[in-house]
Amino acid sequence: MQMITVLRLGHRPERDKRITTHVALVARCFGASSMILTTRDDALCGRIRKVAENFGGDFTVSYVHDWRKLLRDFQGLKIHLTMYGERFTDAANRMDLQTDMMVVVGSEKVPPELYEMSDFNIAIGNQPHSEVSALALFLDRVTHGKWEAADTGGKLKIVPAARGKTVLGRR
Amino acid sequence: MQMITVLRLGHRPERDKRITTHVALVARCFGASSMILTTRDDALCGRIRKVAENFGGDFTVSYVHDWRKLLRDFQGLKIHLTMYGERFTDAANRMDLQTDMMVVVGSEKVPPELYEMSDFNIAIGNQPHSEVSALALFLDRVTHGKWEAADTGGKLKIVPAARGKTVLGRR
Repeated sequence: MQMITVLRLGHRPERDKRITTHVALVARCFGASSMILTTRDDALCGRIRKVAENFGGDFTVSYVHDWRKLLRDFQGLKIHLTMYGERFTDAANRMDLQTDMMVVVGSEKVPPELYEMSDFNIAIGNQPHSEVSALALFLDRVTHGKWEAADTGGKLKIVPAARGKTVLGRR
Repeated sequence: MQMITVLRLGHRPERDKRITTHVALVARCFGASSMILTTRDDALCGRIRKVAENFGGDFTVSYVHDWRKLLRDFQGLKIHLTMYGERFTDAANRMDLQTDMMVVVGSEKVPPELYEMSDFNIAIGNQPHSEVSALALFLDRVTHGKWEAADTGGKLKIVPAARGKTVLGRR
C-alpha cells in the first residue's frame, strides 16, 4: 500500500500552532499516513493523537532533527509543494503516483536547496493561497478523491446530515 | 457571470489572523469574488488588497454588522460548509451550481440557526480538517477546477518552473 508522508518544514510552535494543526488534520483526512515536524512540539502531537483516537486511523506526528538527511535517504518520490513550481496537471504524467511519497510543505520561507533536493516542485495554482489548501488539493488529486469514501473507524462517526449534527459513538 | 461570496463568521482579529488570511487567499485563488467578515479587521483587508494589487483580480474583503440579515436577504444559493453536513457528491445534483452563491465558513463554533438558514449544509469529508481546505475543495468542485487556467492579471506573474522561482513583472 502506498505511504504518503508529509514533511512540514519551519514550524514555530507558538506562531504556527493553528496552521500546522490544520496541515496535520488535512494530511490525516486526505490520505497521508504521517506528518514529520522539524521542531519538536508535544502539544501538537497530543492534539492530533486525540483526533485520531476519536476519528480513527493510524495517522501519527513525529519529529526529526536532520530533515535534509531524512529527505535525502527517502526511498520514493520527493515532492515539494510551492506556488513557484510546475503545475500539477503538467507534471502528473511524469510522476509515479502509485509509489511512496514524501510531500514537503514549507512555511513562509524555505531553504533554496529544497528545490534541488526534491524530484518535483509542484504548484497547486501559481498564486498565493495556503499550505493547508495546497496539501488538500494535492492529496485529493493524487488519491483521486478516495478520502470521500474512507472509513477510518474510531470512537466517533459523523453521519452526513442535511440539518444539524449527527454523531454516533462506536464500540 | 456567477458571483461567489464567502461569508466568514466569528473571526477574532488576533486569534484568527492567519487562518482567516488563508481563507481569504483561498477564496480569491479558487474563484470567489469577495469575502465578508462579521468583525471589522482593517489590517486583514489591507493584506488581501496588497495581494490583489500584486496578483490581480477584483477580489475584495468587507465587513457586515448584521450577517443574519445579509444571509436572509441574499438572492442565490446559501451554502454552509460544515463537517456535519451532507456530502457534496450526494447533494450536488440537487444544487444549482451555476447560480450566485454565498458560502458560509465558520470558525470553531457556529450559531445552530445557521443550519436552518442555509439552503445546504455541505461537508467536504465528515472528518475534522480545516475551513481553509474545505473551502478550497468546495470551490474546486463547484468551478470544475477552472482556477488552474485563470489569469487574473496583476503586477506580478509567477511562471511555473521545475526548479527555483520565476516571477515576471508586468506593466
